[in-house]
Amino acid sequence: MSKFVAQNPGFETRVRQSFNRQAFMTFLGAEIVRVGPGIVDVELLHRDELCQQHGFFHGGVVATIADNAGGYAGFSLLKAEDSILTVEFKINLISPANGEKLISRGRVIKSGRTFSVCEMNVFSCTGANEVICATALGTFLTMKNTKDDLISKRALETSDDS
Amino acid sequence: MSKFVAQNPGFETRVRQSFNRQAFMTFLGAEIVRVGPGIVDVELLHRDELCQQHGFFHGGVVATIADNAGGYAGFSLLKAEDSILTVEFKINLISPANGEKLISRGRVIKSGRTFSVCEMNVFSCTGANEVICATALGTFLTMKNTKDDLISKRALETSDDS
Amino acid sequence: MSKFVAQNPGFETRVRQSFNRQAFMTFLGAEIVRVGPGIVDVELLHRDELCQQHGFFHGGVVATIADNAGGYAGFSLLKAEDSILTVEFKINLISPANGEKLISRGRVIKSGRTFSVCEMNVFSCTGANEVICATALGTFLTMKNTKDDLISKRALETSDDS
Amino acid sequence: MSKFVAQNPGFETRVRQSFNRQAFMTFLGAEIVRVGPGIVDVELLHRDELCQQHGFFHGGVVATIADNAGGYAGFSLLKAEDSILTVEFKINLISPANGEKLISRGRVIKSGRTFSVCEMNVFSCTGANEVICATALGTFLTMKNTKDDLISKRALETSDDS
Repeated sequence: MSKFVAQNPGFETRVRQSFNRQAFMTFLGAEIVRVGPGIVDVELLHRDELCQQHGFFHGGVVATIADNAGGYAGFSLLKAEDSILTVEFKINLISPANGEKLISRGRVIKSGRTFSVCEMNVFSCTGANEVICATALGTFLTMKNTKDDLISKRALETSDDS
Repeated sequence: MSKFVAQNPGFETRVRQSFNRQAFMTFLGAEIVRVGPGIVDVELLHRDELCQQHGFFHGGVVATIADNAGGYAGFSLLKAEDSILTVEFKINLISPANGEKLISRGRVIKSGRTFSVCEMNVFSCTGANEVICATALGTFLTMKNTKDDLISKRALETSDDS
Repeated sequence: MSKFVAQNPGFETRVRQSFNRQAFMTFLGAEIVRVGPGIVDVELLHRDELCQQHGFFHGGVVATIADNAGGYAGFSLLKAEDSILTVEFKINLISPANGEKLISRGRVIKSGRTFSVCEMNVFSCTGANEVICATALGTFLTMKNTKDDLISKRALETSDDS
Repeated sequence: MSKFVAQNPGFETRVRQSFNRQAFMTFLGAEIVRVGPGIVDVELLHRDELCQQHGFFHGGVVATIADNAGGYAGFSLLKAEDSILTVEFKINLISPANGEKLISRGRVIKSGRTFSVCEMNVFSCTGANEVICATALGTFLTMKNTKDDLISKRALETSDDS
């Protein structure tokens, strides 16, 4: 159960379509497995190419799906005409990401007019066992009147320039 | 010029060998282009698979090479028998990563007994033009007497457990 | 209820005594109102001297009690002979701290051998109404065999120097 | 020398006046000692009330002047009719703040339309000796058409609410 109500009834479709347009998610093999109001879970199966020198998921992979789950959790609460950009995030890698798969759970803490603050927890899973391997906190900017699929390169290039 | 002196004369070889053992770096196509005492630069050419929905480098890719440049900058100052792990980092994505390539510059701010604090700046480059697209700050733990290439899975799994 | 078990049965007394030795907490008027294993709540009543130009609690005050609640939550799980130091924290100020008092709730996410990772939420309270005004995430270093009350200046000065 | 040009020729007066309206800065004894375009330095003399249990400046004090130096560095580049709020910051405490005074140096990295990203370094000073004791990175929101001295409580209370 979420404490938030979506403003856009088509939020789930919008989240999934935007996620699927990210070539890097396809490249990694990441998938959205849950979407709710202010809630997005991203899953990623172990592959050798995603690892560091010890055979665990690379910290950059963990950070990537943390960022994505948080950004899309925030996106789920926006109006249909708005988009979202990551402003910043901080991540603590707290235990080895050595499972068969990772699940990143993004949850909105505050959804404001200008930005959203989200918490992201990443779990390393083997069979039915889940261990938290990273925790993150991020800030995401609402880009008003900027459809995610029609956004112009020029608009983005000047997104926060004076 | 670095303000630091390496404790291990073979630091450059050690940094490059460890970096090359990271399958994920090969998968992305990232390369180390500079190693000095407390200094590591990582470069990554644009590829469509590394992008988000607007054709720019994905924020997770930017975060990955920021983390790596910082971690290896810290690693360059360690003793030959020590290894390094990312504890946490924070990254601000400050302009679109829309260049032909990215350069991530990791610099040690403080190299302590237990951990290193590093600053990482990522630049988006097109031709001779370089624009800062992200700035990050991270904490990296020194793992004493843990050769990077011989480290056991078990040792890491319990790396910071009580 | 906490998911953690304290290693030191006298943890509550130790937390309170250490907190009370911090002159800055007395100066602010902050008090510990709850101590459990991996749990510490700090409370602070509104005073004009603690405010910024709009009459709300200053962000630095909010950060101070976030840091303290997290550090002491981590401290509560350490052995009797160990102490704790803040390595770093990140804080999002998500709504104005305009209440009659603040409550900062520190909770341990992971208590490791070398460091603890804690989450801290600060609430702005007026009457029975509580609104989250800040959320934070921090890393705290365990200083082994360093009694909090006997610690020498010299030991700390070189705490993480090579 | 700064790489930035101020949009408001009266920026220095505006920064100093706003700083002086912060009761908490007076309470601590903090003073602005330098203002330039995108540059603010804040100084704070040692007082026993500002310390933790070991007689060093409390981490919350260090964080407070880091936040302030960064926020006012960002503020110096805004238009005369705009104000600034801290969105978030992250700080690493890298060595004991055991000097006679602290100097916090805030520098703008990027000044955008919506927010500013600033770097803050805090130095512990004894005589002519300066040692970096903390480094921080923060995000600050531009509040358009909101004079810092006329801002209404109501406006702020709803500052980022939907």
